[in-house]
Amino acid sequence: MAKTTITAEPGVPTVVVTREFDAPPDLLFRAHVDPDLLVRWLGPRRLTMAIDHLEVRHGGTWRYTHRDAEGNEYGFHGVYHGTPSVDGITQTFEFEGMPGHVSLEKATFEERDGRTLLRQVAVYQSVEDRDGMIASGMEAGVRDSMDRLNELVAAMVPVG
Amino acid sequence: MAKTTITAEPGVPTVVVTREFDAPPDLLFRAHVDPDLLVRWLGPRRLTMAIDHLEVRHGGTWRYTHRDAEGNEYGFHGVYHGTPSVDGITQTFEFEGMPGHVSLEKATFEERDGRTLLRQVAVYQSVEDRDGMIASGMEAGVRDSMDRLNELVAAMVPVG
Repeated sequence: MAKTTITAEPGVPTVVVTREFDAPPDLLFRAHVDPDLLVRWLGPRRLTMAIDHLEVRHGGTWRYTHRDAEGNEYGFHGVYHGTPSVDGITQTFEFEGMPGHVSLEKATFEERDGRTLLRQVAVYQSVEDRDGMIASGMEAGVRDSMDRLNELVAAMVPVG
Repeated sequence: MAKTTITAEPGVPTVVVTREFDAPPDLLFRAHVDPDLLVRWLGPRRLTMAIDHLEVRHGGTWRYTHRDAEGNEYGFHGVYHGTPSVDGITQTFEFEGMPGHVSLEKATFEERDGRTLLRQVAVYQSVEDRDGMIASGMEAGVRDSMDRLNELVAAMVPVG
């Protein structure tokens, strides 16, 4: 089974996430920009996602929240740079629990014999910012998200 | 006289520019968001700047060009993350001569006894991207810009 890799080298303000999926790039892309699909995979399983708005265009803004069983809410927002497409999605990202610590994320969808390698590169303003995001529990959230995305696209791909 | 410092450490995809100005933070901020002021200092002296659009708000997009005496044009565009203010300006940045190589920039204006420390942090998706921008002649452009900004605000500050 495909595994999620998360790379965060010491001294560099970057996190790289990769995961291979048994689904075509356009389906992976759609799962990133269709709000009805996005809420089904993004974030830890124990949290419920709600999308405030998601304007999928150059300069479009987005905001969503994750809520736990106790009602605690965690907000995130950002802006798209360039028109999101299957060639890539570039956006800013800010966790409202750490205001002012903005990162830049790029997701690409590379076809590999009918499968797709999803690659997410996030760069932070400093290594401290990057380490702060990791300390906030990012890794478990990413692994859950990738597993949930895998389940979602597996359920959507026509059986050949 | 104040000097511009440009720091680009090996192995880290970051460029930090600092410069102190004999002017208050709000004037420095205005010089970044008022198109009539911005065209008077941003870029190398030998190029003429023209602003296509500059939407100074969260999700607002901007684009400008620099043109040389031979009519060659260099385009740049990006998006604001958060509402630009004297507390800081965060934006994406893309040189259209190197499409797809987007960076994230944050400018801050710190008051120091009536003077202002301008600090610009730019992070790139990779060290290669960062080095590519430096190789494209970024340093001379930054030094010219900071000197021109210094001249502009010096001409605008009331003599006490």
